[in-house]
Amino acid sequence: MEETDSRDAALDRAFLALADPVRRRLIARLSRGPATVNELAEPFEMTKQAVSKHIQVLEHAGLITRSRDGQRRPCHLAPAALEELTAWIDSYRLVAEAQFRRLEALLGSAETAGPSRENRKEEEQ
Amino acid sequence: MEETDSRDAALDRAFLALADPVRRRLIARLSRGPATVNELAEPFEMTKQAVSKHIQVLEHAGLITRSRDGQRRPCHLAPAALEELTAWIDSYRLVAEAQFRRLEALLGSAETAGPSRENRKEEEQ
Repeated sequence: MEETDSRDAALDRAFLALADPVRRRLIARLSRGPATVNELAEPFEMTKQAVSKHIQVLEHAGLITRSRDGQRRPCHLAPAALEELTAWIDSYRLVAEAQFRRLEALLGSAETAGPSRENRKEEEQ
Repeated sequence: MEETDSRDAALDRAFLALADPVRRRLIARLSRGPATVNELAEPFEMTKQAVSKHIQVLEHAGLITRSRDGQRRPCHLAPAALEELTAWIDSYRLVAEAQFRRLEALLGSAETAGPSRENRKEEEQ
């Protein structure tokens, strides 16, 4: 139960972190390679402090990590954390799609079973 | 720009909708097939009204739809909407992973290039 709780809390933080256009743009930028807070803040029309807060949210959610390179502390994307999110979504999406295809196949066989019986009768005559 | 804004708003709503353990359990349940609000509320230790609110959040985010079946209004999962989310995440995850592999390959060839030059010298002697 505790494990479920901590996984739930991690998913809460990660999905919440992605529910913001600025943070999604930061993810997009970091996908092309590591960058410092200054570099990340540059294209935004907001204070470095505001961008820094968004970065902290992403870091707390485990979606980015920070390394040390002398005085620089570049941010890196954590692809494994993103993969966990797609794995969570896909596990249910794929079940739903399989269910849908099964239903479609059932409806399809019911539809063809109906008229085909009639056709068979005609062919037999 | 407007299109980006509306797509951003849609992603905001969808990721925010997933940032809650109850709503994720509702998604999990609906992946196995449609269900009414009463059926969805049954396993939860909360009022039907509270579950109903969570369902509204999921519906507003486009992650579930509702049909009419006489008096029943069952909820259905919208796999295409979930797929859009994984597509968004994966587009950046895959770029990041490709960058990482490229870097790894570069470091690998730099490492083998270093000592191999020395080795070649020794071999030439």
